[in-house]
Amino acid sequence: LQSVLWNQDHLDLLDQRLLPEEIVYLPLKQAEEVWDAIRHLKVRGAPAIGIAAAFGVYLGIAEADTPDTKTMLRLIEEKAAYLATSRPTAVNLFWALDRMKERARVSADLVHSSAELKDIMLQEAISIQQEDEETCRLIGEHALSLFKEDMGLLTHCNAGGLATAKYGTALAPMYLAHEKGMNIKVFADETRPVLQGARLTAFELQQAGIDVTLICDNMAGMVMSKGWIDAVIVGTDRVAANGDVANKIGTYSVAVLAKEHGIPFYVACPLSTIDLDTPTGADIPIEERADEEITEGFGKRTAPKGIKVFNPAFDITPHDYVTAIITEKGIVEAPFEENLKKLFADMEQLEAK
Amino acid sequence: LQSVLWNQDHLDLLDQRLLPEEIVYLPLKQAEEVWDAIRHLKVRGAPAIGIAAAFGVYLGIAEADTPDTKTMLRLIEEKAAYLATSRPTAVNLFWALDRMKERARVSADLVHSSAELKDIMLQEAISIQQEDEETCRLIGEHALSLFKEDMGLLTHCNAGGLATAKYGTALAPMYLAHEKGMNIKVFADETRPVLQGARLTAFELQQAGIDVTLICDNMAGMVMSKGWIDAVIVGTDRVAANGDVANKIGTYSVAVLAKEHGIPFYVACPLSTIDLDTPTGADIPIEERADEEITEGFGKRTAPKGIKVFNPAFDITPHDYVTAIITEKGIVEAPFEENLKKLFADMEQLEAK
Repeated sequence: LQSVLWNQDHLDLLDQRLLPEEIVYLPLKQAEEVWDAIRHLKVRGAPAIGIAAAFGVYLGIAEADTPDTKTMLRLIEEKAAYLATSRPTAVNLFWALDRMKERARVSADLVHSSAELKDIMLQEAISIQQEDEETCRLIGEHALSLFKEDMGLLTHCNAGGLATAKYGTALAPMYLAHEKGMNIKVFADETRPVLQGARLTAFELQQAGIDVTLICDNMAGMVMSKGWIDAVIVGTDRVAANGDVANKIGTYSVAVLAKEHGIPFYVACPLSTIDLDTPTGADIPIEERADEEITEGFGKRTAPKGIKVFNPAFDITPHDYVTAIITEKGIVEAPFEENLKKLFADMEQLEAK
Repeated sequence: LQSVLWNQDHLDLLDQRLLPEEIVYLPLKQAEEVWDAIRHLKVRGAPAIGIAAAFGVYLGIAEADTPDTKTMLRLIEEKAAYLATSRPTAVNLFWALDRMKERARVSADLVHSSAELKDIMLQEAISIQQEDEETCRLIGEHALSLFKEDMGLLTHCNAGGLATAKYGTALAPMYLAHEKGMNIKVFADETRPVLQGARLTAFELQQAGIDVTLICDNMAGMVMSKGWIDAVIVGTDRVAANGDVANKIGTYSVAVLAKEHGIPFYVACPLSTIDLDTPTGADIPIEERADEEITEGFGKRTAPKGIKVFNPAFDITPHDYVTAIITEKGIVEAPFEENLKKLFADMEQLEAK
């Protein structure tokens, strides 16, 4: 089950809001439809959003009738700027759009026609998707090195195959462990208000035949106190330069509980999620979403009319609570500011060679 | 809005499962209906359950046609034993039923007819309800002594007027603060899976004109980290002799978060909730409830079919996390084992005088 599929001339996008009851692919042919899909959580998960947005840029220019490459470049930049307004927190969205723009800029002077530039945009989006799959596999392998037989794991929200090209980030080691025949036991927080844990994580792990137990978010403390959890592993929407982690609301509470129980708290993410230009978690904008997600999220009103609601989509887990950040390039531990900087510097050095 | 109303010859019981959308009173005329109402959470909240059960004993004998007081006493004991099977955790249930039985035993030798014994049972149930109202008011006054102007408070589940005869336990000081014109700001955890916080606490505080904001359980950590919470106050279903607290699932997580943020964690309850015969929290049975509360609690399936679920109704907060237990007889602090024992010994001494 893949969340984003390129299909000749359009994007087939799995409508994740309908899971697990219905498996519906939406055929998206225009940038506006991609914007809407990202905004309204039809596609979610930082890497999957980035992939969808990259294809969105291509869809935004595919029908444009301009032979001039300069005009085409400007159009690409416009579409990218437009798609960047769909959601404020996910840094992969901006990363993917920047990569598309950068590729367009570099290519604009080299190509002989705007048609060629269009084709390069499509190829770049496909590359982003393929690289994400490889990235997730590598994250999974690094994370798996921290796993042991019979381990109990807890995860929050969905950082699984549905959130990425394949495997996921936080769930990648679970898939790899299962492939190797290791015995693991996963507890999935249902993740209010939108229930990504119940609808997506429980669903995709169950489909894969992995031992998964669904709990309400407020049961994590009890499950830890029973000694059932050996590690927490979550994804993230953005990591700041100092290692502070923005992730689905509730992640911070899980991190505090993990610390209190002496349980390691791992964050799994591609390097594209780490933003050295964001100094700390305090610099990450936190999206607040509609009251109705809480007051009538289940097709039925469950709170009094007119009630005041606070509904932040994300919270910040300070780096003190993070045991390690697991990337495709390896495992980063504290001091995060220093070690993250070093990781990127080493990579730039490698690329320079 | 009262949850349990005696109405001449039957109990009018507010069906709390339908709140806040519908206000429906169920006329209960038989002990079996009361058992069912307790079992299926039509009435909930430890004191309200105790009150309902006490009236249930009377309803169980009201129509019994036996002139013999000994037979009537045996019937009272049977009905009490039967009603005790409705829910396993709430100690007030057992306390109220024991009080009914004790009153019946003491009275059986003194009365001249079983009709007189029946009448005593009804009076005793009414007394339990009246005393609960007075108890709640006293708890509220003691708790209010810990409150300050402009305080931010967080509560979990519903320990309000709906859970008791009036005022509630954890919510009692909020009502009294509001009556005195104090400015307080309350955050109510929605309290999955059954949403007592969203459906009941938010509802009754809103009705009273108190400033209340509804959040998902997993937002408590973020709200605390923002500095919005000056105290947590919750009710309880049973306090063990060492001060360990059984309360709605999720309470333990809130207590850990409060400790991490240096926020006092108060437990408000009548003395009838404190069970010196239960040595520690480990001795309190934890009820596990149906999977469907989590997988399709709102008339709509929100988790994959066949998913494994863990659904404990309560958790244990070890006394180390408890700042104080607030009772109608005053505020008890650590060391709890010693101070709770002393509180009861002092009371017995007073009663002996």
